[in-house]
Amino acid sequence: MTRPTPLSGFPEWLPGQRMIEQHVVDRLRRTFELYGFAPLQTRAVEPLDQLLRKGETSKEVYVLRRLQADAEDPSDSGLGLHFDLTVPFARYVLENAGKLQFPFRRYQIQPCWRGERPQEGRYREFLQADIDVVDRGTLSGHYEVELPLVIADALRGLPLPPIRMHVNNRKLSQGFFRGLGIPDPMAAIRAIDRLDKVGPVGVAAQLVASGATDEQAKAALRLGEICTTDLSFVDAVRAQGVSDPLLDEGLEELAAVVSAAAEHAPGLVLADLRIARGLDYYTGTVYETVLLGHESVGSICAGGRYDNLATAGTEVFPGVGLSLGVSRLLGPLFGVDALRSSRPVPTCVLVALADEPARPAAMRTAAALRGRGIPTEVAPVPAKYGRQIRYAERRGIPYVWFPGEPDTVKDIRSGVQLQADAAGWTPPAADRWPTISGPPEPGQAPEGDSR
Amino acid sequence: MTRPTPLSGFPEWLPGQRMIEQHVVDRLRRTFELYGFAPLQTRAVEPLDQLLRKGETSKEVYVLRRLQADAEDPSDSGLGLHFDLTVPFARYVLENAGKLQFPFRRYQIQPCWRGERPQEGRYREFLQADIDVVDRGTLSGHYEVELPLVIADALRGLPLPPIRMHVNNRKLSQGFFRGLGIPDPMAAIRAIDRLDKVGPVGVAAQLVASGATDEQAKAALRLGEICTTDLSFVDAVRAQGVSDPLLDEGLEELAAVVSAAAEHAPGLVLADLRIARGLDYYTGTVYETVLLGHESVGSICAGGRYDNLATAGTEVFPGVGLSLGVSRLLGPLFGVDALRSSRPVPTCVLVALADEPARPAAMRTAAALRGRGIPTEVAPVPAKYGRQIRYAERRGIPYVWFPGEPDTVKDIRSGVQLQADAAGWTPPAADRWPTISGPPEPGQAPEGDSR
Repeated sequence: MTRPTPLSGFPEWLPGQRMIEQHVVDRLRRTFELYGFAPLQTRAVEPLDQLLRKGETSKEVYVLRRLQADAEDPSDSGLGLHFDLTVPFARYVLENAGKLQFPFRRYQIQPCWRGERPQEGRYREFLQADIDVVDRGTLSGHYEVELPLVIADALRGLPLPPIRMHVNNRKLSQGFFRGLGIPDPMAAIRAIDRLDKVGPVGVAAQLVASGATDEQAKAALRLGEICTTDLSFVDAVRAQGVSDPLLDEGLEELAAVVSAAAEHAPGLVLADLRIARGLDYYTGTVYETVLLGHESVGSICAGGRYDNLATAGTEVFPGVGLSLGVSRLLGPLFGVDALRSSRPVPTCVLVALADEPARPAAMRTAAALRGRGIPTEVAPVPAKYGRQIRYAERRGIPYVWFPGEPDTVKDIRSGVQLQADAAGWTPPAADRWPTISGPPEPGQAPEGDSR
Repeated sequence: MTRPTPLSGFPEWLPGQRMIEQHVVDRLRRTFELYGFAPLQTRAVEPLDQLLRKGETSKEVYVLRRLQADAEDPSDSGLGLHFDLTVPFARYVLENAGKLQFPFRRYQIQPCWRGERPQEGRYREFLQADIDVVDRGTLSGHYEVELPLVIADALRGLPLPPIRMHVNNRKLSQGFFRGLGIPDPMAAIRAIDRLDKVGPVGVAAQLVASGATDEQAKAALRLGEICTTDLSFVDAVRAQGVSDPLLDEGLEELAAVVSAAAEHAPGLVLADLRIARGLDYYTGTVYETVLLGHESVGSICAGGRYDNLATAGTEVFPGVGLSLGVSRLLGPLFGVDALRSSRPVPTCVLVALADEPARPAAMRTAAALRGRGIPTEVAPVPAKYGRQIRYAERRGIPYVWFPGEPDTVKDIRSGVQLQADAAGWTPPAADRWPTISGPPEPGQAPEGDSR
């Protein structure tokens, strides 16, 4: 067989990079669980009619078919791979409502698939980490305040660039446009959301095309330009002289999010009144997040409140959720070598091997170290000790264990070699497992060199 | 939308079951890392020609197509979902050989997909946990000894029924049949592998059909009946009076596996000379594993040595691997309620809420507890304390925190309520996170009742 080549849009990491991804996922998971979110996984496939409820994604869906499809068994026909975790979650909630406790807090960390044209940070297969809270009937507004704090808490303590979350509220925008007398408030919301892409002139033209007067278009643009780190957005909106009960609701809800974030995670949240999110199912707070210094990647964490996504008959399950794009976050950082693992293997200790008959004793030494939580492997072949040390060096394994009378263990970075007993010796905590760090200091050798 | 129904073959767990699955996966992962296996994930898709190298699985493969396929961009046409983790791993090794250190030890825990007819323990989407060691050029035989010990170590400490691993060696069987003068030793290996399914008469007929004499068929059956927990299989084979250098090699290799297992994991391994594994790429040790008391589920952990799966030009990367079927293991146990989580949410403490204005203070209390690693949520709505206690009870949350002067915390199982400070109070270790246990004692209420 010829040497295979990568598939565009389906990134795969090297083991050291996978360790970083795992470290990030572990941190997310632990934080989500500290906040009481229960773990959940849904199957990778959904019926196409579920996936196509939102028309705009239809061309991105991957459809499945069994290679030798069986006309007698149509049970797996008409399935596609999920393109996000929100649609499967809404379906799961409806399907299992009788077995769940509401409000239901869950997190879900799984790959998704979209047939998009691949570009930096946008993949056809990508890992997402979602948190959602769904209730039966009505959903209390404080969850819209809590969710950004959970994400901020999760990312704190990871060696990542800082994030900024741009937040708006659909009711605020819709109420403002309605109070302004714009004939199609939803069209106006979508137009303002494109301010970054098409500029104020383009947005104004779009607003006018959807029936707004020039004056209304100007007022709408003034709203879209409001972006504040504190509660001053409230006065800035009030100064426009528009009044509407939905606007009042939206202002109050957004103010709650901004002030709670200012207390618990200063600098995290901006009230940015142009944000809308393309998806029509959002009905309240909406979120988008940029990684500072990597704005070109786009939003790495987005979501919002959805009141009508999960409904069955007269039952409704309103929810609010945030999706963190793990691949979208890490891919660009891997691309510029901004994250590193202290070694590309878990191993902390290599037990050297004088000759093959010594292997059972070496295995017992390794078992004793592992039994006390120290990642250990036995040398693959007996060889000169210098060669075994080089084996460890190439993998970044910090310690080599030499069986003897007594045993000794050598820190191959410092060269210090000490007597040791497998029943008692413990490495420094920082060496036991690989550690993850941010960009190298200038002048430090890149990871590849040390392998 | 109407209430959705489950999809046959695509199981989904409830949050409490997902916690058990995660607990099992965490234990596997930690053990694999203690043995120095590096983490790896491969994409879910492979080119069809890769997937179809083994003809027998062709009808089980799920093929992908973008719903609105783009003739100008054929980059994602001809892809299918992987049906195991061995084929993608062999491809990954070839693709990244220049960036990996050999011998390369990796583990990989991911879903796989097969369009099989669903039945107990056999799913169309299922989670697999694989360990493999691959080397460049030649692979030392001691890895065939090590791998079963890693799996046994990983499963030890989980509340699962005991396992038994049936092990054979392809060289042993092939050498025996060759020494016996059977014209097609590979056909004989496959025939003997079906002894459980078709019985001795059927196997004998198959052997004769593939060119063996009656005498040879009888001798082959006698080999297939050898099954020992110790090294006595060696004498039992020798007693057949067949000699062949490949047989000698196979006997020696299998003896090494059996004796190491007897030392490190007594009772784990049986030498069972009928085992062959259907896949033609195995060339040495082969493994199959049953869960005692659940033999009807079939093999929950299988694999073997493959010398020729990953080759590019003159380069060859022989390997040995074991795949643990996590879904196949857990699905049947979930079916009989044989495993349980102490609660279906991670939450250890619910902070009660007297009224909505008290929420910011409750959030600070919760943050202080979380900051010390105690999973905490704030009550969803202010309500009478009795109602908030019932909220906790239904979820199995053991502690309710009452803000006051001073704060108090109540163990709602015992009713004991004590003064507490969020900066210092710590729950007993057994309560902090949910715990996983085996089948309930007779008379104990099933999990569902307490929700």
